[in-house]
Amino acid sequence: MTDWAKGAAWMAGEIVPVAEAKIGVTDWGLTHSDVIYDVVTTHKGGFFRLEDHLERFEVSMVSGRFDVGMDRAAMSDALTSMVARSGLRDTYCSMVAARGVPMIPGSRDPLECVCHFYAWVVPYVHVIRPEIVAQGASVWVAKDVRRIPADCVNSRAKNYQWGDFTAGLFEAKEAGFETVVLLDHAGNVTEGPGFNLFAVSGGKVVTADLGVLEGITRRTVLQICAEIGVAAEVRALPVAELMQADEVFLSSSGGGVLPIVRVDDRIYGNGVPGPVAERLSALYWDWTRRAALRTEIPYD
Amino acid sequence: MTDWAKGAAWMAGEIVPVAEAKIGVTDWGLTHSDVIYDVVTTHKGGFFRLEDHLERFEVSMVSGRFDVGMDRAAMSDALTSMVARSGLRDTYCSMVAARGVPMIPGSRDPLECVCHFYAWVVPYVHVIRPEIVAQGASVWVAKDVRRIPADCVNSRAKNYQWGDFTAGLFEAKEAGFETVVLLDHAGNVTEGPGFNLFAVSGGKVVTADLGVLEGITRRTVLQICAEIGVAAEVRALPVAELMQADEVFLSSSGGGVLPIVRVDDRIYGNGVPGPVAERLSALYWDWTRRAALRTEIPYD
Repeated sequence: MTDWAKGAAWMAGEIVPVAEAKIGVTDWGLTHSDVIYDVVTTHKGGFFRLEDHLERFEVSMVSGRFDVGMDRAAMSDALTSMVARSGLRDTYCSMVAARGVPMIPGSRDPLECVCHFYAWVVPYVHVIRPEIVAQGASVWVAKDVRRIPADCVNSRAKNYQWGDFTAGLFEAKEAGFETVVLLDHAGNVTEGPGFNLFAVSGGKVVTADLGVLEGITRRTVLQICAEIGVAAEVRALPVAELMQADEVFLSSSGGGVLPIVRVDDRIYGNGVPGPVAERLSALYWDWTRRAALRTEIPYD
Repeated sequence: MTDWAKGAAWMAGEIVPVAEAKIGVTDWGLTHSDVIYDVVTTHKGGFFRLEDHLERFEVSMVSGRFDVGMDRAAMSDALTSMVARSGLRDTYCSMVAARGVPMIPGSRDPLECVCHFYAWVVPYVHVIRPEIVAQGASVWVAKDVRRIPADCVNSRAKNYQWGDFTAGLFEAKEAGFETVVLLDHAGNVTEGPGFNLFAVSGGKVVTADLGVLEGITRRTVLQICAEIGVAAEVRALPVAELMQADEVFLSSSGGGVLPIVRVDDRIYGNGVPGPVAERLSALYWDWTRRAALRTEIPYD
């Protein structure tokens, strides 16, 4: 009996338990972090916004010049059959395009590599554990490290180059904070490891425009705001404005809308999740149940 | 019969053919590019400057907070037994520390991961093929992409975050050039994919001080210069100075000293490798035969 409880993977057309899914130590996906990926979640047995994730993944692949030899239908089939086989209902489902290895050993030309697609699914991941969010989660503004500028690595193509986030996480953990957000070199708020950040001031929500991944959950939050008549701005967010906000929250497919009660020494809402974040969080889970945004998975 | 001609790997204490060496698709070494590595070469059956590479690797591991549970002697033994088993004499030998996966699934804390060491060896790699170097190799100065700043990712800890190099290589290949060098945001020359760069002006060599890996081959070049009385400066190298230099060359453990005859539209030395680079290249190969810098490998 194969144990699928920990997850499954789709590797070159074969579905295997996630622990058996591996890539070669000389694959440029690893040795040059030459990878594009995306993460779609499933909720109660259906993908949420699968087409939007596949579309962003395809755009990222084009910008990074990855040709994996599969069209959207083939990738969608791979993801669907993989999750179905796992039997898991609430999941974190990752699709990856990796550069592979050169056709001619010793080549240093990425265009001479054989790109490949793979995918893996594990039980749903929360970027901050729900019990910590309920108690009041904290974010550290990194002091010694800045977000990699977009003219070095394209932040809009979801990538694995987390060196700045990892250094920031070490800072945050040492300071006793749950997670970290990075500033750009102009002192504007960008994003954190696996999430976008929003500030709420006078009932209006603001999130960064540049130097960030255009998160699908961020998009969902902005669409919810439009639907319920909450004003939203996508523009530079100076760190001073973040510190003076009424509320702060994160958006991530790993948890939806996550209220934050503390940034550095600043406490928001007397340490209790704010009303705007709480409302958006509840609506986010409602949206994951909307049929028009779901792709149901045919389990055996 | 195991075919070792393509290389070998040391994975968790076992030596396997390199094609069988893999890491898990959920390892943070891959998914967060949370990896430190180093490359030592062997020449005619002996490591060149093995202790220097191990020392730099250890310093990088400390700065990145990797504890792989092995001391220098154990890592040296792993590399030695791996190369001996491969039977290969002239090699590119990579040692890697990867973050691994969290002890508790779902954790987002790098300190809760189980780091691990592995290594692999393949036949010697040239960053530019020798026949191209002999004909006159060319370097493109990237226009659309800049080197990741050191306050985002520590350039002195050898890492796999090559997104900027890969984007630069695409530019270079499209323009018909062999490889690429990146500038920092101040317009100074930094480094390229797998090499440092030197400019020679009036018999004096100059290489960048900041935003670069302190290459062991770069160090060897500086030591050779000191021994033979060639003046050398380690400081900011503005791109204008590069374009006005008499000669340009690269240093890399993947090829030693590589003369360059063209940078963008600028031709150096009428398209023929320059005398300083040629002399340093020959001396580099002499140095790889110096017993004091070698660790001989006990093949069976």
